[in-house]
Amino acid sequence: MCGIFAYLNYQVPRTRKEIFETLVKGLQRLEYRGYDSAGVAVDGPDKTSTDINSNTIYLIKKTGKVKNLDEELYKKDSLDLDVELCTHFGIAHTRWATHGEPSAVNSHPHRSDKTNEFVVIHNGIITNYKELKKYLITKGYEFESETDTEVIPKLIKYIYDNRETDSISFSTLVERVIQQLEGAFALVFKSRHFPGEAVATRRGSPLLIGVRSKYELPTENIPIQYNSGRHKEGVQEKNSHNRPDCADSISPVGDSEAVEYYFASDASAVIEHTNKVLYMEDDDIAMVAAGKLSIHRLNRQAGEDPVRAIQTLKMELQQIMKGNFDAFMQKEIFEQPESVVNTMRGRICFDTNMVVLGGLKDHLKEIKRCRRLIMIGCGTSFHAAVATRQILEELTELPVMVELASDFLDRNTPVFRDDVCFFISQSGETADTLMALRYCKERGALIVGITNTVGSSICRETDCGVHINAGPEIGVASTKAYTSQFVALIMFSLMMSEDRLSHQKRRLEIIHGLKVLPELIKNVLALDENIKTIANELFESKSLLVMGRGFNYATCLEGALKIKEITYMHSEGILAGELKHGPLALVDKDMPVIMIIMRDACYIKCHNALQQIIARAGRPIILCCKDDPEVTKNSYTTIELPQTVDCLQGIVSVIPLQLLSFHLAVLRGFDVDCPRNLAKSVTVE
Amino acid sequence: MCGIFAYLNYQVPRTRKEIFETLVKGLQRLEYRGYDSAGVAVDGPDKTSTDINSNTIYLIKKTGKVKNLDEELYKKDSLDLDVELCTHFGIAHTRWATHGEPSAVNSHPHRSDKTNEFVVIHNGIITNYKELKKYLITKGYEFESETDTEVIPKLIKYIYDNRETDSISFSTLVERVIQQLEGAFALVFKSRHFPGEAVATRRGSPLLIGVRSKYELPTENIPIQYNSGRHKEGVQEKNSHNRPDCADSISPVGDSEAVEYYFASDASAVIEHTNKVLYMEDDDIAMVAAGKLSIHRLNRQAGEDPVRAIQTLKMELQQIMKGNFDAFMQKEIFEQPESVVNTMRGRICFDTNMVVLGGLKDHLKEIKRCRRLIMIGCGTSFHAAVATRQILEELTELPVMVELASDFLDRNTPVFRDDVCFFISQSGETADTLMALRYCKERGALIVGITNTVGSSICRETDCGVHINAGPEIGVASTKAYTSQFVALIMFSLMMSEDRLSHQKRRLEIIHGLKVLPELIKNVLALDENIKTIANELFESKSLLVMGRGFNYATCLEGALKIKEITYMHSEGILAGELKHGPLALVDKDMPVIMIIMRDACYIKCHNALQQIIARAGRPIILCCKDDPEVTKNSYTTIELPQTVDCLQGIVSVIPLQLLSFHLAVLRGFDVDCPRNLAKSVTVE
Repeated sequence: MCGIFAYLNYQVPRTRKEIFETLVKGLQRLEYRGYDSAGVAVDGPDKTSTDINSNTIYLIKKTGKVKNLDEELYKKDSLDLDVELCTHFGIAHTRWATHGEPSAVNSHPHRSDKTNEFVVIHNGIITNYKELKKYLITKGYEFESETDTEVIPKLIKYIYDNRETDSISFSTLVERVIQQLEGAFALVFKSRHFPGEAVATRRGSPLLIGVRSKYELPTENIPIQYNSGRHKEGVQEKNSHNRPDCADSISPVGDSEAVEYYFASDASAVIEHTNKVLYMEDDDIAMVAAGKLSIHRLNRQAGEDPVRAIQTLKMELQQIMKGNFDAFMQKEIFEQPESVVNTMRGRICFDTNMVVLGGLKDHLKEIKRCRRLIMIGCGTSFHAAVATRQILEELTELPVMVELASDFLDRNTPVFRDDVCFFISQSGETADTLMALRYCKERGALIVGITNTVGSSICRETDCGVHINAGPEIGVASTKAYTSQFVALIMFSLMMSEDRLSHQKRRLEIIHGLKVLPELIKNVLALDENIKTIANELFESKSLLVMGRGFNYATCLEGALKIKEITYMHSEGILAGELKHGPLALVDKDMPVIMIIMRDACYIKCHNALQQIIARAGRPIILCCKDDPEVTKNSYTTIELPQTVDCLQGIVSVIPLQLLSFHLAVLRGFDVDCPRNLAKSVTVE
Repeated sequence: MCGIFAYLNYQVPRTRKEIFETLVKGLQRLEYRGYDSAGVAVDGPDKTSTDINSNTIYLIKKTGKVKNLDEELYKKDSLDLDVELCTHFGIAHTRWATHGEPSAVNSHPHRSDKTNEFVVIHNGIITNYKELKKYLITKGYEFESETDTEVIPKLIKYIYDNRETDSISFSTLVERVIQQLEGAFALVFKSRHFPGEAVATRRGSPLLIGVRSKYELPTENIPIQYNSGRHKEGVQEKNSHNRPDCADSISPVGDSEAVEYYFASDASAVIEHTNKVLYMEDDDIAMVAAGKLSIHRLNRQAGEDPVRAIQTLKMELQQIMKGNFDAFMQKEIFEQPESVVNTMRGRICFDTNMVVLGGLKDHLKEIKRCRRLIMIGCGTSFHAAVATRQILEELTELPVMVELASDFLDRNTPVFRDDVCFFISQSGETADTLMALRYCKERGALIVGITNTVGSSICRETDCGVHINAGPEIGVASTKAYTSQFVALIMFSLMMSEDRLSHQKRRLEIIHGLKVLPELIKNVLALDENIKTIANELFESKSLLVMGRGFNYATCLEGALKIKEITYMHSEGILAGELKHGPLALVDKDMPVIMIIMRDACYIKCHNALQQIIARAGRPIILCCKDDPEVTKNSYTTIELPQTVDCLQGIVSVIPLQLLSFHLAVLRGFDVDCPRNLAKSVTVE
């Protein structure tokens, strides 16, 4: 997840300093989406000339937070900050790395070539970038970064260089580019060939356009222009890029054509400038030329809305920042249908049932030869290891150990050259995990990272790894990173077992489960009100037990940790199989017990545990499969969840507990995103 | 631990039925000491004759509880229950197996030969029985049981058969026997050659004698008779066995010599008959002949009390049952200085620093060749695995996995032919552990048992194992079994590393640590009052955290479990290294936190954790090493413990938490031995 911001002022004079300030401010609003590096592209000093060759684009990029970029901008002596630009288009980007570590060269905007003919900012992941890159290299294009994004400016230049006609429009170029792209993206393009013009598009990643003018807009509904099949037939462009048809675009009505456009990943970056926004749809191409905004699409599909409406936002900035959510944590819980897709994007092909984790591909043979897998993490990341241990054991047929990083170090655990060690950390900076990594590396084990932060210390020091692509997580209590770590490890198990005939049925079942997982997560999120009601009954309790076993044991640990972290209630995850070896003594009518009873191999054992709880007058709250008659026939409090493959059930079952912890914390009056005593990333031992 | 009971009526007519009732009642009082089989030896029907060959001894033995034996007694048609016996000596035993599974043939009394010339009951362990057995077999003696005990009746017969003179006394025979014995024992002998006579002796195991008479005893102080060197010099016995010197013995004064003697492992079996008891000292030999009790010793040592006093007990039966303790759990906590010695007895030679676990000796090579060790248990037994994992990893240099039996089964964990699996269970009947055992056995792994119950299902189904010899544990919350499991696993690690030069220093350090361990445990038990004071401050809390890391992490888990089990407070053991990954949010001024900070490799890290707790206004209770200035300079509540080798520290540090849980439960008004909802041995899944 990255933040995109672009600003076009048409017939509105702004000093370069004002433009920088607008761009930086926009990025800062989006910084929650990522903050490992940032960059801008603006017009160079020779803007006055009409000669294309005198159009220059300046790129300024810097690693670290937006603040670092801000400082950098004012160091460019060659750019006059006080010069007033009547019309200008600047693009800006704050990055959260998915490919290539955070560095100036890997940060956006990316460019087509050393002269910056085309520059682009991108949020998302291009999954077929390797193929495109290979092709473009054969065509003589030179790449400078390790990113997936860089293929885009190269590709647009390639199309431009091979255009059939000089009058090809900027939007048509982009249209052709996105026909070649797979994955998710929001893109904004700027070009020396099209000064003062902007083209933006999206697929999967969010993008909106804010419009600001002193004058009334002629319409709030912009009709879509369909360019269907034109270039296939070699037909001349309908509109020249200089003069889009006025009927198909907007520009202000009145004495002046003065207007400003803002392109952003979300409304938070725009709302302080204007409350008029247009939300782009997948595969929309928006172009601003001569101050006029038009929307283009390749093909019209049946039932499609033929216009894009400009809406008037009534929200406060703070609201927009978190969307409709009260806290980042809540927002991140609700992002999970998308974040798990991002984790799988470009890695699972649901048509061929192939799973390829690019970061591990080259080490797969070595991994398959190993003596055992060791998964190491702290807190939630450790729970992701616990959650997937069984399926890893099943599909890899290897012994799998899970270890808390600090304990692993304390114990001076024996590690050998033929071990493969996984280090799981959202931030990639967790001190104990990092030290455990170095400990294992010294002993010659193969080091694999599972992180959410490309370029983090753990990323840099691993031999190979998987980036979970969950997007930045702001809430201290981890939610979407957990489910994405979970999915990433599941994918690893699928990749490891691809060649085993006896596992094929199981693999297909799991792959299908992953395919429908986002829908299931949405179904669970729809239970929010039900869960809130339960929170209302529980929030004054002192203690809480969360019980389950098998594939759902990790959910108990993780659910209890969430509740601990943000509600400060003493919650504890308990293996239901251990109930009679002690914890049952705690159970009486006053102790709330959340039980996870899913339809899997442990179903009957879990019911036995339930009977034990009932017999001791406990009043359980049961997470069960939808319409489980054994549970629902009684008058227990239940949260009914959709059923999926046993090894994926933990993803579905943890979400109600994430939501429950959130509501409990709110009811108890605590700051959900910043729980007392805790920090997001534990970078000290 | 077994229960010994014997009853001698001299000139007090009793029917055989009355004698049986007395013996059975005595055993039932001692049943808490063991209850896997029981037996009695009484005179046969031909008692009227004076011919030695017509003296017969009947042995009646039965597996199971004393109740089973009781039923068996009345099935013997050949014994007239109503016949009145004026003088008779019967011995009885309830067994808790240490060698040889519970069965009639392995249960006591054991006999010298098929004609029952000598029969004996034994509580304790004879550590040199293998050597003695071998010797006696070469002399033509045939053994029928698998017990250590059986060498004793064989040995006394051997000495009797090879006596220099016919007038050798029963006590002299026993004196010669015990000179050959190593280990711990309390013994009571009966013989066809000495009808109406009893000889008892002890070393290490408890034994007392109750005296009952309608008439006054001539003295309350019985002088000791020293037999020093006599038989070496071949000198004639000082007293014939028929007539011990009256001055050196007691018998009632008055019209009649009628008197009854009771021999028992503790006063609980005696108190309903008499409150006059004599506690025997190590190597005392007590003989009753012609109704007169005398005490013999081999050598007089300087400073030794020259008499044995007959005391008048003022306690109630219930009190005696538990000794000075309010509950069996408390008693068992205080037994730990002895129970750990019993675990080590005959296995560690502190002179040569050799460690030999007889039960594993033959499999050692195979174990050393294995790919990994897997330790499997439930509850407390699992914690014993956690506690010793690190030292096993260190000294065996093998990967060591610890697994909760139920989770291990739920996960269908991969197990291989070259794995060695340890199954830890006090009762040896824990259902999950037993099923995990069968699961591993099917997969061809080597199966090792660590139990406290010889002949249990786990014992029977293992390939080899270690009996921890902690003695029966009555309290549901396990205490002495934990420390003995701990010691057993430590001994295993020592045995595994015997041949490694690089480990010798470490081994010697640990062996020395084990040698002084009983003393250290006594020092900790002496802190009981201090701990009670702390319990007074804590007992109204709802929650409690127990925090530590490294070698003391298991103590946190185990301490928290004890508190859960019997106080019903929500206590949780937390790895201090995970503090910042969640649990720290729980800490405020209201949350009691017990921290374990010992002088080991984690010392500084633990202090860091302490600072975190302090910074959040927590008021920790610190278990630390004696005189740790870093801790004691502040005004924290502390429990100062003796320091030992890091890997043994957990034995020392768990005891204060056992005591704390006990006092908390008492203060909260709960039944310590029978916590709600829990059973001692969980024999169902």
